[in-house]
Amino acid sequence: MSRWPDTRFLALAGARLPIVQAPMAGAGGVALAVAAIKGGAVGSLPCAMLAPGEVRAQAAEVRAAGDGPLALNFFCHTMPEDAEDGAWRALLRPFYEAAGVDPHAGGGGAARRPFDAAHCAAVEDVRPALVSFHFGLPDEALLARVRATGARIVGNATTVAEARALAARKVDAIIAQGWEAGGHAGRFLMDPPDEQMGLIALLPQIVDAVDLPVIAAGGIGDARGIAAVFLLGAAAVQLGTAYLHCPESLIMATHRLGLVGAAAEHTAFTNLYSGGLARGLPTALTEALGPIREEAPPFPLAGAALAPLGFKPHWAGQAARLGRPEGAAALTERLGREALALLGAKA
Amino acid sequence: MSRWPDTRFLALAGARLPIVQAPMAGAGGVALAVAAIKGGAVGSLPCAMLAPGEVRAQAAEVRAAGDGPLALNFFCHTMPEDAEDGAWRALLRPFYEAAGVDPHAGGGGAARRPFDAAHCAAVEDVRPALVSFHFGLPDEALLARVRATGARIVGNATTVAEARALAARKVDAIIAQGWEAGGHAGRFLMDPPDEQMGLIALLPQIVDAVDLPVIAAGGIGDARGIAAVFLLGAAAVQLGTAYLHCPESLIMATHRLGLVGAAAEHTAFTNLYSGGLARGLPTALTEALGPIREEAPPFPLAGAALAPLGFKPHWAGQAARLGRPEGAAALTERLGREALALLGAKA
Repeated sequence: MSRWPDTRFLALAGARLPIVQAPMAGAGGVALAVAAIKGGAVGSLPCAMLAPGEVRAQAAEVRAAGDGPLALNFFCHTMPEDAEDGAWRALLRPFYEAAGVDPHAGGGGAARRPFDAAHCAAVEDVRPALVSFHFGLPDEALLARVRATGARIVGNATTVAEARALAARKVDAIIAQGWEAGGHAGRFLMDPPDEQMGLIALLPQIVDAVDLPVIAAGGIGDARGIAAVFLLGAAAVQLGTAYLHCPESLIMATHRLGLVGAAAEHTAFTNLYSGGLARGLPTALTEALGPIREEAPPFPLAGAALAPLGFKPHWAGQAARLGRPEGAAALTERLGREALALLGAKA
Repeated sequence: MSRWPDTRFLALAGARLPIVQAPMAGAGGVALAVAAIKGGAVGSLPCAMLAPGEVRAQAAEVRAAGDGPLALNFFCHTMPEDAEDGAWRALLRPFYEAAGVDPHAGGGGAARRPFDAAHCAAVEDVRPALVSFHFGLPDEALLARVRATGARIVGNATTVAEARALAARKVDAIIAQGWEAGGHAGRFLMDPPDEQMGLIALLPQIVDAVDLPVIAAGGIGDARGIAAVFLLGAAAVQLGTAYLHCPESLIMATHRLGLVGAAAEHTAFTNLYSGGLARGLPTALTEALGPIREEAPPFPLAGAALAPLGFKPHWAGQAARLGRPEGAAALTERLGREALALLGAKA
């Protein structure tokens, strides 16, 4: 049996396979993490929308189901000071009227909160193998507390400059998030979004820029993509959309169907659902308003006005159509086996 | 010595290496094609800005320099009927004033002309190994004449739907042009540009959709990228920016320096130079006006008003920094050798 060309991530995470199941707030959860770990991957819990007690409870559920590496994922965005969303609610007025909902209805929906001391206390209790951060990193005091738990720290870079900035903060591994990735782009140095590189260009430039294991993310839909990024220098992959197809993901039926239909060739970034740019399938809302609107307040505030209307994003990356419905444990094992075969078959 | 995992393109093109030197109107030419062919690649001549006599003359120069596969490249855009560019010239007025140039100065600059009967007659005389088309394909009568010369026909797809459309027209190979690619995106079905996929997602979906050799293009900057796309199912690569670094390319010194500097991490699509979307380095013009302006007339008309001002685009793909100055023949041989080693070393 072939070995992976780079085993640094395997050693760092204690995983059988160099695959991270992406956290995916709203779509991931205990069942998906448990199954991914069972298959040999790192399982991730999306914690940005969880209270610290929920983090502890979900982590305990994962641990009770079996051994294996667990990652907790948090957001590190700065909350905008001005929460004014009048123009946004005005734009949405026809939808409120059609739904018979009060246009000044309260927020509703779980807030996305930046990583804080209470979250950090939960990390200290859970002591996960990995802690990954989106939208940058927490301040140095919090980061030191996370590091002191023994957890390996993973940052997310959408540009080479972000990778250099993360390396300077002494992270243990860096996710290279390509243009293709579904969900929120984790930009934190705020270069123009249209400058984001496709993974095939971004990954080797990050590999050359930092002396750390790099986790490739974005547009990797099957074993071909996994094998390819190892030749580009990756030490692991993070797969999101591939796991959305699994019965363990929490997405709605319409979202699930969209992943395998023609619309999956037309994903685009939208700021309608959170105020931040995230890639997803076209939805009734993006078709009606266009995917990008200036009226949407900054991340994460746009979601509050949408919650009473029941609109849900259908996040997906550009390789959605390469996936297929399959249990997450079996999917993980199959992808690992097939990718190794592709890497080994080239002798 | 390892073999390439897919040899269909080698057989089709009669090349030693599965590498196509991208045509690059304004930057490629006889010297670059000759050197690329010498190194084992398919050499390409960009013919969209050449008169038929120039096509014949340049092809003869390439042939006189040595044997090997030659591709002629043409554009198949529809010329816009309304050539009005008043708003565009008004926007450019400060530049005309600063340069002391008459704002109604005549066009100047070579026009980009769609492939026509006169071009086709040149193809019939030259009888190249390949004819590649950008922005779709010519009409069936012209395509049949090209096919009758024995040339293999190569189309360019920026989406899976475009690949299917090209396959239906019986092309012999399809370029999968990813989001990362420098120069003009060859869109012809006109899906929203922001939906263009990164190569790692686009390539395997096109490979799955058509039963033809697929040539991967965009963001492939070195041997790692070449090896990676073969695992994604490519039968060849088309390299543009990698060859721009070569002394045989015709680009200006400022452009050449930009390819290896920090700006190369900030390429973006702009419509300022032609009216069509093309990826390049930031320039004084894109910094002054922003890269995309509605005032620019449709492709290819924007260039006429710019020509008297001397502004030149600095086209580049997202992997520019992975390249380095090196003679095109040596570069070609090295990339082929290194990519084969990467593919073979994974046993």
